[in-house]
Amino acid sequence: MPQFRVVTDPDDPAVAPFRAIKERDLVGREGLFIAEGETVLRAFVRDALERVVSLLIDPKRRDKLEDVFASLPEDVPVHFADQAVLDSIAGFHLHRGVLAVGRKPQPVAANALLAGLPARAVVLVLCGIANHDNIGGIYRNAAAFGADAVILDADCCDPLYRKAIRVSVGAALSVPTARLGRGEDIADLLANTGFEALALSPSASEVLARLKPAPRTAVLLGAEGPGLSPDVMARARTVGVPMAKGFDSLNVATTSGIVLHHLRFAEV
Amino acid sequence: MPQFRVVTDPDDPAVAPFRAIKERDLVGREGLFIAEGETVLRAFVRDALERVVSLLIDPKRRDKLEDVFASLPEDVPVHFADQAVLDSIAGFHLHRGVLAVGRKPQPVAANALLAGLPARAVVLVLCGIANHDNIGGIYRNAAAFGADAVILDADCCDPLYRKAIRVSVGAALSVPTARLGRGEDIADLLANTGFEALALSPSASEVLARLKPAPRTAVLLGAEGPGLSPDVMARARTVGVPMAKGFDSLNVATTSGIVLHHLRFAEV
Repeated sequence: MPQFRVVTDPDDPAVAPFRAIKERDLVGREGLFIAEGETVLRAFVRDALERVVSLLIDPKRRDKLEDVFASLPEDVPVHFADQAVLDSIAGFHLHRGVLAVGRKPQPVAANALLAGLPARAVVLVLCGIANHDNIGGIYRNAAAFGADAVILDADCCDPLYRKAIRVSVGAALSVPTARLGRGEDIADLLANTGFEALALSPSASEVLARLKPAPRTAVLLGAEGPGLSPDVMARARTVGVPMAKGFDSLNVATTSGIVLHHLRFAEV
Repeated sequence: MPQFRVVTDPDDPAVAPFRAIKERDLVGREGLFIAEGETVLRAFVRDALERVVSLLIDPKRRDKLEDVFASLPEDVPVHFADQAVLDSIAGFHLHRGVLAVGRKPQPVAANALLAGLPARAVVLVLCGIANHDNIGGIYRNAAAFGADAVILDADCCDPLYRKAIRVSVGAALSVPTARLGRGEDIADLLANTGFEALALSPSASEVLARLKPAPRTAVLLGAEGPGLSPDVMARARTVGVPMAKGFDSLNVATTSGIVLHHLRFAEV
């Protein structure tokens, strides 16, 4: 069981990592992240227990979370603070009443991550996804359909940003992830590790619904608007999702769901 | 061509419908709605020109929008206001610089809308979707995959709310829509108009990827959390999207995209 503490002073040094949450969302937390809400906390404790640092909880939620507390190691403190103290620590009204601080994992090299995956594997490669809703939505789909890893290019936002974690329903805490260095060549990397690069393109002649994927498939997803660079597109197998007249784009998170669903279930 | 006017006084009565936008988002606009941004404006003018009431534009955007202005009827005024005046009218910083006021369509009876659709048709039936991001995302997918109509129950939020229109990339302005009265029985309505009701359920024995749909199919989508009522589920054909261990839900907008993609392209 963890240590339980009651916090009555918002300036209590023990809850320093929970202080002024929104301001520090912007500047980063040097190796730590904030997870919020009961659903995310449950996913965190289930999937990445070794990275839980401490919790800050509205005592009204205590009973509902007893099973979560019971699964925590002894060295993880659980701080309880009433709503007013909680709001004062966090710097905004925290209606979810559940916060956790976590430790970010050590960076992993994309090359090593890809090489170590099974002979049949699906990974997502995200290029320039800078919107936290979209990156969170993509992680949620990656977890739901059992994608083996996510590779981020240097222009993607942080999937361990508070809102991205929330939108991912905690999946950002568990899907194996590597980030490319700036200028690192994703096409070379995929070729060297035996992954076929698949890129969505409105001008592709092959249709997603008829696609028979390679055993190791990497789905490249770019931001709406700029999309994928011509260089990346030129070296990928392009597939299209035909759309109704006048419409030419899907949200990138929705696209990830449609592609992953096809890759997982299609018998073409 | 429309009438062009320059607005220098934020209190000019001609721009009254654009005033205090966020406050009036909350209380409604009595038959009017606000559309914002160039992409949405282009969709609005292309798909629902007869419902455009007036525009308010940052003159810096004028050149880029000449083709849009040329397509407007004479009785639609285009107001130009510099950023500071624009912000003062709208009540917040309007970085998109493009606003339109539109007239909501007359309500249509769900029964008449469904009965009038072709023999092969796909509609979405939304039950208790109260989140504007989700409803906007669902409309975007409905338009992208050519769904024939959207039916809203009495608990859904307004798809013509400003943010929902934006997330839908304007699709909320063009997809035929009807709203059910409270207590109106959706299962009866679908049966009477020859639509098979399809409901997603984790416990279904039939899998979406193998589903061969009826000629007229209605996809029922409920809010995350509560989902669809047991009564609605009991009278629908249930299909499942199997998920990886530990994960049991997809975002509802993503789900709509996966289902519509299957219904449009699957050859089962």
